[in-house]
Amino acid sequence: MPYISTKTNIAIPKEKEIKIKERLGKAISILPGKSENWLMLSFEGDSSLYFQGKSDKPIAFVEVKLFGKSGGEAYDKLTSEISKILKEELSIDPGQIYVKYEEVSYWGFNGSNF
Amino acid sequence: MPYISTKTNIAIPKEKEIKIKERLGKAISILPGKSENWLMLSFEGDSSLYFQGKSDKPIAFVEVKLFGKSGGEAYDKLTSEISKILKEELSIDPGQIYVKYEEVSYWGFNGSNF
Amino acid sequence: MPYISTKTNIAIPKEKEIKIKERLGKAISILPGKSENWLMLSFEGDSSLYFQGKSDKPIAFVEVKLFGKSGGEAYDKLTSEISKILKEELSIDPGQIYVKYEEVSYWGFNGSNF
Repeated sequence: MPYISTKTNIAIPKEKEIKIKERLGKAISILPGKSENWLMLSFEGDSSLYFQGKSDKPIAFVEVKLFGKSGGEAYDKLTSEISKILKEELSIDPGQIYVKYEEVSYWGFNGSNF
Repeated sequence: MPYISTKTNIAIPKEKEIKIKERLGKAISILPGKSENWLMLSFEGDSSLYFQGKSDKPIAFVEVKLFGKSGGEAYDKLTSEISKILKEELSIDPGQIYVKYEEVSYWGFNGSNF
Repeated sequence: MPYISTKTNIAIPKEKEIKIKERLGKAISILPGKSENWLMLSFEGDSSLYFQGKSDKPIAFVEVKLFGKSGGEAYDKLTSEISKILKEELSIDPGQIYVKYEEVSYWGFNGSNF
């Protein structure tokens, strides 16, 4: 039950989005017990974002929401991998990327909560 | 002080959005002490979403954010009702819907925090 | 490592967005140790929002996400300032604005977590 949203101020070409989708589908396994089988993804390009008062470079804000807790070490590895993916696929400098985690206690699927 | 955002990869026709708005306005009373009088809603159709690596079916990601805590039983009932509403109004299969809860400690309204 | 997203149902003219960006860049210093040097901002105008079942007035939903905790008193001051900014720049009545806080335990930047 993880969810990753990727918001950036640059356009996300469809073929890049699909590539990132595939790579995030693999990366999510860094979190114990998580896999693409439960992963929902959201992409939002051409957003109005500012970092350090500026918007002249590519910027990304990534939110990872997961049911339960995976621990700081796993999150650290995932941040590294997500940053690598966005760098390689969209040329976003990791110094312009925030990856934020939310551990969720109540999460519903198929009409009831886990 | 609840807020419900509904994000989906399909279009949300205006008349459906209004219907869902009305039904969520009733459903929110499932949470003790909450009512449409304090409910804020957000709708986002035609979003780029993937679930289980695919985007060929209708998908929805719903976030329920509330000030304080209502307890797991109430959230479970609300998940059931929200899934029912999205199934009936937008034909989204509950097996393609995540409903995520966030209990919020600090919430501002009218210039100051509760 | 704060992030503030501003979502509203009215249009945000570019010159107003820049003004709000500048003012939020100053306001963030209300939170101890935070500054525009670490601030990421997101703006989303013309969103589909409802408050109290209606969408005929300007509405705003603001999310403040920060690494760590700043304490209720600082959040209260920030809510007051954010509401003032949105009132003055976009004529949104503070009684139509929610400002929600999220204290984040895991936050990544530049490829690794803080």
